[in-house]
Amino acid sequence: MRAGVTFELPVLLALDLTGTFAFGLNGALTAVRAARLDMVGVVALGMITALGGGIIRDVLIGSIPPAAFRDWRYFILAASGGLIAFALSRWLHRLETPILVLDAIGLSTFAVIGTTKALAFGLGAVPAVLLGVVTGVGGGTIRDTLVRRIPSVLHSDLYAIPALVGAAITAATVRAGVYGLPAALGAVVVCFLIRMIGVRYDLNAPQPPGGSGRRGSPRDDA
Amino acid sequence: MRAGVTFELPVLLALDLTGTFAFGLNGALTAVRAARLDMVGVVALGMITALGGGIIRDVLIGSIPPAAFRDWRYFILAASGGLIAFALSRWLHRLETPILVLDAIGLSTFAVIGTTKALAFGLGAVPAVLLGVVTGVGGGTIRDTLVRRIPSVLHSDLYAIPALVGAAITAATVRAGVYGLPAALGAVVVCFLIRMIGVRYDLNAPQPPGGSGRRGSPRDDA
Amino acid sequence: MRAGVTFELPVLLALDLTGTFAFGLNGALTAVRAARLDMVGVVALGMITALGGGIIRDVLIGSIPPAAFRDWRYFILAASGGLIAFALSRWLHRLETPILVLDAIGLSTFAVIGTTKALAFGLGAVPAVLLGVVTGVGGGTIRDTLVRRIPSVLHSDLYAIPALVGAAITAATVRAGVYGLPAALGAVVVCFLIRMIGVRYDLNAPQPPGGSGRRGSPRDDA
Repeated sequence: MRAGVTFELPVLLALDLTGTFAFGLNGALTAVRAARLDMVGVVALGMITALGGGIIRDVLIGSIPPAAFRDWRYFILAASGGLIAFALSRWLHRLETPILVLDAIGLSTFAVIGTTKALAFGLGAVPAVLLGVVTGVGGGTIRDTLVRRIPSVLHSDLYAIPALVGAAITAATVRAGVYGLPAALGAVVVCFLIRMIGVRYDLNAPQPPGGSGRRGSPRDDA
Repeated sequence: MRAGVTFELPVLLALDLTGTFAFGLNGALTAVRAARLDMVGVVALGMITALGGGIIRDVLIGSIPPAAFRDWRYFILAASGGLIAFALSRWLHRLETPILVLDAIGLSTFAVIGTTKALAFGLGAVPAVLLGVVTGVGGGTIRDTLVRRIPSVLHSDLYAIPALVGAAITAATVRAGVYGLPAALGAVVVCFLIRMIGVRYDLNAPQPPGGSGRRGSPRDDA
Repeated sequence: MRAGVTFELPVLLALDLTGTFAFGLNGALTAVRAARLDMVGVVALGMITALGGGIIRDVLIGSIPPAAFRDWRYFILAASGGLIAFALSRWLHRLETPILVLDAIGLSTFAVIGTTKALAFGLGAVPAVLLGVVTGVGGGTIRDTLVRRIPSVLHSDLYAIPALVGAAITAATVRAGVYGLPAALGAVVVCFLIRMIGVRYDLNAPQPPGGSGRRGSPRDDA
């Protein structure tokens, strides 16, 4: 690991842990909605959602074993989110907005931290940005595939794009030598705001020209 | 690798090879039932079922190249199981019980050996237990995803839970310094018995409270 | 890496880059056909198709970070293929034959290069052949899984078998000490021809005896 890139600033760490819990909770809730699963399935999918993106990143940059297996806090928070979602799924469905906000915090923080960690392991700026996005969206993608949904990041809402912007700001500030708490928080906030604006106004990434999608909906549960 | 953890006791090795063959056979049979595949597909899915869990574990602990690519016995047994299943699928469907027993032997042995190998590579007890479970259930999960079924470990039968118990006993005995053939076989037998009791009495892990599953069945082929 | 295995001959490199572009284009077109995706989804699936097989191979042989993250040419070509497919999908559907030819070039080159790279990293001949096939078919398999199709390599056309033949010729010539440009091009051409003959005469790998496939078609979009 290169010295000088401090990717574990205390404030970021707090956001990262918050995001891990939120991803575990939200991932498990999505799993409960998408398929009839037992407790093992719901908690496993919550943990996969929370930890999967970072594990893919760590495998690809060579940070083995992945952080999720070394720092018990991530593990506990992801499992707690999944267990709470399992126990309280009927009530939590009413809390859609706070959960979306927590999820956006997770997405933003994961994208920024994922990018800095990839840079710290010597990757170039473009691959590091890509791995920042993967950190943010990878876990949800695995979860959706396991419950047989087309990953929502591929077809709906602005989800990958805010992560891409946050990751790009991060890589640019690291390369310019001005990365630090203000830059990191700035990147997190920009990502968070784009995501929230997308949710509020139901914005989507562009569709293929000419309406080439041939099926009404890619979802099972629509 | 830490010295002192002997994860390749001869008896365990024999069980491990038996389990690899059983997983290859059973994985390929499941694939034949789930989708119309050609020979390449059936054998590939048998091999993925038999070797996939160990490959994921080895990637995550940094044992590269994975054991499945270094020891030709695993490779040959997994491929043989898949080929036999392809050739004899019509007859093998009648042998459900012996195949379930062989599969449970594989699950039990994979969970115990996976846990000891993760500990030998320096992982903590909780991640090692998790990787033991992944060793046991990972291959079948990839297979189910590829043939577009929700992985059965997520929604049906006691499958992950016996693996979890076997892995936990293994980690506890390693940490207590009493791991050896009796402890390993004890963990295998406990896992095997819980699995078999689950099959016999059709036990399942708890469902989410309030029946939040909204679809009749997560399976295509129900 | 072992010295003496030159897996980046200039001609092969040109074919490899051609194949990367073709896989990006074809992968994205398949994604457009299979599901209603936005621009992020289409381009992401094109890139996954083009780069996924090589990334899996590199993770399994320990070439970290994967070549796709170190050589910007692969990255740019894969993304360009995906973007062109997104923009021109309505027109490109009419160019089925040239795209199939480009795709077969990609398959052939990926299989040969994947095998030589695995050998160069010290793997045995059989695992190296397998990883050559994975290099050729892995990206398309991930793409199909993400858009909820049973991977076409598992059930239709001669696709894995030409890759297997090309990879086996490669490993045999490397082991015999006669690998070089003629052997590499020979293996590429043999794989390409088998694939093209399969496409032309609609050949398939053998089906399980007795017609054990129980569903009319494993495809959503049939």
